[in-house]
Amino acid sequence: MTPEEFRRHGHLLVDWIADYRARAESLPVMSTVEPGDIKVKLPARPPARGEAFESVMADLDRVILPGLTQWQHPGFYAYFPSNGLLESVLGDYLSTGLGVLGLSWQACPALTELEEVATDWFRQMVGLAPAWQGVIQDTASTSTLLALICAREKTSAYGLSRGGLQDGSPPLTVYASAEAHSSVEKAALLAGFGRENFRRIETDENFALRPEALARAIEADLARGARPSAIVATTGTTASTALDPLAPIAQIARRHGLWLHVDAAMAGSAMILPECRWMWDGIEEADSLVINPHKWLGAAFDCTLFYLRDPEHLIRVMSTNPSYLQSAADGRVRNYRDWGISLGRRFRALKLWCLIRSQGVEGLQARLRRDLVNAQWLAAKVRRTAPWRLLAPVPLQTLCLHHEPPGLAGEALDAHTRAWAERLNRSGKAYLTPAVLAGRWMVRVSIGSAPTERRHVEALWQAMQEAAAAG
Amino acid sequence: MTPEEFRRHGHLLVDWIADYRARAESLPVMSTVEPGDIKVKLPARPPARGEAFESVMADLDRVILPGLTQWQHPGFYAYFPSNGLLESVLGDYLSTGLGVLGLSWQACPALTELEEVATDWFRQMVGLAPAWQGVIQDTASTSTLLALICAREKTSAYGLSRGGLQDGSPPLTVYASAEAHSSVEKAALLAGFGRENFRRIETDENFALRPEALARAIEADLARGARPSAIVATTGTTASTALDPLAPIAQIARRHGLWLHVDAAMAGSAMILPECRWMWDGIEEADSLVINPHKWLGAAFDCTLFYLRDPEHLIRVMSTNPSYLQSAADGRVRNYRDWGISLGRRFRALKLWCLIRSQGVEGLQARLRRDLVNAQWLAAKVRRTAPWRLLAPVPLQTLCLHHEPPGLAGEALDAHTRAWAERLNRSGKAYLTPAVLAGRWMVRVSIGSAPTERRHVEALWQAMQEAAAAG
Repeated sequence: MTPEEFRRHGHLLVDWIADYRARAESLPVMSTVEPGDIKVKLPARPPARGEAFESVMADLDRVILPGLTQWQHPGFYAYFPSNGLLESVLGDYLSTGLGVLGLSWQACPALTELEEVATDWFRQMVGLAPAWQGVIQDTASTSTLLALICAREKTSAYGLSRGGLQDGSPPLTVYASAEAHSSVEKAALLAGFGRENFRRIETDENFALRPEALARAIEADLARGARPSAIVATTGTTASTALDPLAPIAQIARRHGLWLHVDAAMAGSAMILPECRWMWDGIEEADSLVINPHKWLGAAFDCTLFYLRDPEHLIRVMSTNPSYLQSAADGRVRNYRDWGISLGRRFRALKLWCLIRSQGVEGLQARLRRDLVNAQWLAAKVRRTAPWRLLAPVPLQTLCLHHEPPGLAGEALDAHTRAWAERLNRSGKAYLTPAVLAGRWMVRVSIGSAPTERRHVEALWQAMQEAAAAG
Repeated sequence: MTPEEFRRHGHLLVDWIADYRARAESLPVMSTVEPGDIKVKLPARPPARGEAFESVMADLDRVILPGLTQWQHPGFYAYFPSNGLLESVLGDYLSTGLGVLGLSWQACPALTELEEVATDWFRQMVGLAPAWQGVIQDTASTSTLLALICAREKTSAYGLSRGGLQDGSPPLTVYASAEAHSSVEKAALLAGFGRENFRRIETDENFALRPEALARAIEADLARGARPSAIVATTGTTASTALDPLAPIAQIARRHGLWLHVDAAMAGSAMILPECRWMWDGIEEADSLVINPHKWLGAAFDCTLFYLRDPEHLIRVMSTNPSYLQSAADGRVRNYRDWGISLGRRFRALKLWCLIRSQGVEGLQARLRRDLVNAQWLAAKVRRTAPWRLLAPVPLQTLCLHHEPPGLAGEALDAHTRAWAERLNRSGKAYLTPAVLAGRWMVRVSIGSAPTERRHVEALWQAMQEAAAAG
């Protein structure tokens, strides 16, 4: 495709996306296709000859659109908001259009230096000390894996340069709350710790990690000769945005010399609001931290920020220096390939830079505050309306709730809960995802899709009541 | 930004990218900024108020452009070609504009099903058996890490579900050629094997792994009580595109029950040419395979294909099933989150789908053949022209060469080699990256940038001779 053809098709594509975003509200939120419905519309073999790009665009409406769950819909309350705001989308368009790669500083100096600046802007926005240095990763899952590998190597005095985890030393152990995200256990397993050395610590009535239970678990491991290595604390758990108390957890980490990683993937964006920073009091004592601007804040996916108080440690673990990547500038620059797993890196800083410049800090703050107020509005409605019930505090924008008709409990209540959520999802008006909290199914309402205004939350409340009553 | 503002700015941005691609040839290939030059042009603090998007676009020319190394320039012969062809760029624009995420099939059915279809199209294009199943990852580095974790778990009978690598069993060992990519050793270290358990096997006169040396290393490890776990063979090494002989290597892997992973990150794209498939004879005996369509083939970065002959093994290692991700469709669909590290996934299949449909298999084949012919043209020139010398076979599109003025050898020759490459790079006409081969610096010429035609290679040959003579 020539640049002139790209210009023509690019304009049409931008128009298609503009129209898509404008009409998202008219589409069902959750896709209702059945497994295989999309596949059967696609040829089983690749085309021998090239086709006009118009035919690809035509298939967007015919094939792709019915199979989309609309993450940019005002009725999207599932999982977590992933707001690809359109200014950030444009930043990503720049990145892909430029087609540059950051294998090293020399391979694209602007890619590295804008990433340094944009991650430092964000550091200031969430009120972290200047010691923290950031890098953009794809996801929190990857960042947590990196953090646990760092912990493993710190505790083993860089065992990777010797026998790895295979030197017969006492086992290293990892700790996280019972409400920690599934990626934490996965990271511990991938890093080689083994499930027997991963501890899920009990939580309190608000679903936050109990520091005294953590301290007991560490002491029990020490007593049996294990070597405690890392704690993963969560600021804003997935199910209920519970807040693990960082200050006492950090004290325990320091006392025993453990690596403290903080998963603030969802809630970290809220730290651009000074009134929310109490939620991670103690953060300055952590070793690493992950925040996903590609969630609530509005950066186009994928844009995860991984911060470290001592990046030299990460670099020592990750660095490679093959001849084909060396350049004269190496000693004077940051080479982000040594800050993660991938060698090739996209120019991801552009989408964060475009977002922050276009919205300004105040614009981003105003939108998050809108969502916090909407969540409190719905929480008040639920509290006031029997037989609805809130199951957890609402510090942020996620509500955990039940509709509990008299006499319904246990598995019958689980069935009712999942049924009314499914009815609502099938209606196409809203999309909610149920989850298990304290052993029982409940419905999460995760408010914060960019187009979601008060009127949409009011309509949701109406639709929830209808769905629950229809059972 | 509203959809209407996006439409307006999007058109301007598409125009900017179209103009950029059209004028890339007029820009210096390698950026000549000094460390810090980009950073000082950027404000140290984030803006409190939002700015007009016009001011961001203005900074593209003022701040970003001077700091770009032009990967889409016809004079780009560095590292490897990463051809973000414009039809694939449009596919990525669709992905980012739609703003959907693949946490599970239900979270976006089209994302999963198009990935199944597009990876199967590509499987057919490179002539692999139907048993192979594919997934799109970000990079080969990540894919090789996944492969080694699979090997680790297979050899240890799923040790991750028990004590991980920390159960005091005999150490697991990994094998790769001395010419394997730096990401292979990095993956072995990140997976916890430890450097002492990573073997670099010697290569032959063509820089390909010697199977008999591999067999000896495995037997030596068995004799000392270690447990050989994985072999990483390379089809097309980074320095010289050397071809490890897969058939005898696979035989050794089978004899000892080792996992065989094939790194065909660069050369795998050439397997869409039937005349090149001899290069990976034996591939059907491998367990996993990585190919990067985001290199020579033209998919917009990042688009790495990771194929497995038995995905059930990967899924068993990677799967998590938290309540908040469960849906009624789970048993009947593919959930790609269990095929890699990240939970959140972009709609990456769109950029591969758009590329294949727009180019057709024949269009892609024609372009690769053009580059193979250009490489042979330059190789013939070098062979015929003293004191130039080819240092390795040229099976694909990469040449390894020296300019060896009489009497120059050893470190003096190294200095001459790096000096003329640096002079050429500084000229802005072309960008080449030196590397070490057999202990000495040489210059790699990696042909295959999409806009590189014969006339550009002729101009390169002229410029190389001038740069070498100017010393």
